[in-house]
Amino acid sequence: MKLYDSIGPNPRLVRMFIAEKGLTIPTQTLDIRAGENRKPEHLARNPHGQTPTLELDNGSFLAEVTAICEYLEEKHPQPPLIGTTPEERAECRMWTRRIDLYICEPLTNGFRFAEGLKMFQDRVVCVPEAAPGLKKIAADRIRWMNEQMKGKEYVCGARLTLADLLLYGWLDFGAQVGQPLAPANTTIAEWFKRIAARPSAKA
Amino acid sequence: MKLYDSIGPNPRLVRMFIAEKGLTIPTQTLDIRAGENRKPEHLARNPHGQTPTLELDNGSFLAEVTAICEYLEEKHPQPPLIGTTPEERAECRMWTRRIDLYICEPLTNGFRFAEGLKMFQDRVVCVPEAAPGLKKIAADRIRWMNEQMKGKEYVCGARLTLADLLLYGWLDFGAQVGQPLAPANTTIAEWFKRIAARPSAKA
Repeated sequence: MKLYDSIGPNPRLVRMFIAEKGLTIPTQTLDIRAGENRKPEHLARNPHGQTPTLELDNGSFLAEVTAICEYLEEKHPQPPLIGTTPEERAECRMWTRRIDLYICEPLTNGFRFAEGLKMFQDRVVCVPEAAPGLKKIAADRIRWMNEQMKGKEYVCGARLTLADLLLYGWLDFGAQVGQPLAPANTTIAEWFKRIAARPSAKA
Repeated sequence: MKLYDSIGPNPRLVRMFIAEKGLTIPTQTLDIRAGENRKPEHLARNPHGQTPTLELDNGSFLAEVTAICEYLEEKHPQPPLIGTTPEERAECRMWTRRIDLYICEPLTNGFRFAEGLKMFQDRVVCVPEAAPGLKKIAADRIRWMNEQMKGKEYVCGARLTLADLLLYGWLDFGAQVGQPLAPANTTIAEWFKRIAARPSAKA
């Protein structure tokens, strides 16, 4: 395996997942600010032009962070970060999709279409007028997550999973790009500290 | 197992998946137009207030369509609709997430914030000014998918997967709510006919 890596929350999630698994995977870092990920060489690996992309041992390329993490979990089940039974995996996938679709995506597009517009306007369809509303959607769902997390150590109760790493990475990213956690989300703030203290957070 | 069902593309995807698997799962249909999914009884099943929701045999409730389909695949591996090897599953999950995040979500929100605004404005944060741009994002990604599908029978090559059912359901939904497939997407149009001819499309 070989990981095509870069700055940004998506590659960081995969690095954290790899660190939590205790794996070492050879890595090549692309300069996405210079558009290295939009050049033919990387587009041949990932026609969507994104990082991270994982080169598998069979020579194929795997993109999309949740798919990459699922693959790493299947190849290296210990320690489990998705689950060890169909029911555990289902619970993790449910929360992962909620966080992915309802928090990460509007938060990221809220950034891309505003603070990040200069970098993204020639790369994807940008909708500047949508940015404030998308940020509001993300903030609303984070408030909802704060309610859901009450009394729980991690998103899936007692076990640390992909859902925690995903939420952590994007809240941390949000704080860096003008979408800090609202002070009322005290449950998430406590949980955030727990994840931030893990060695994998430095990955 | 018991499926809490309703109108809409999300429940339809799960019904198609169940039909392709040849399963029979007891079903209760909720009247989402009347807001039955926002009442305490359903919110106890799914605090996000959405359909479909699957009640598992252990009494827990599972929401989010891709998580439900993954669970059904694990419990009933034949015929495979995600994959039989880690590599096959990874490929399917990569395409499923691309379709989910970059096509289904902007298409659906483009509808919710415009044609569907009356139904959704008191249920979720709505951003009417984002609707035209979100529709443009979905259309752009559908055009991209059309390129990616050239020469392939299904999204993952020779095998029918969850990714096909997802894309089919949302393109069919889009056509019903003012986002028809652009005529230039001829590869997708041919593929669409193949999926529409399957008995599961009536589920």
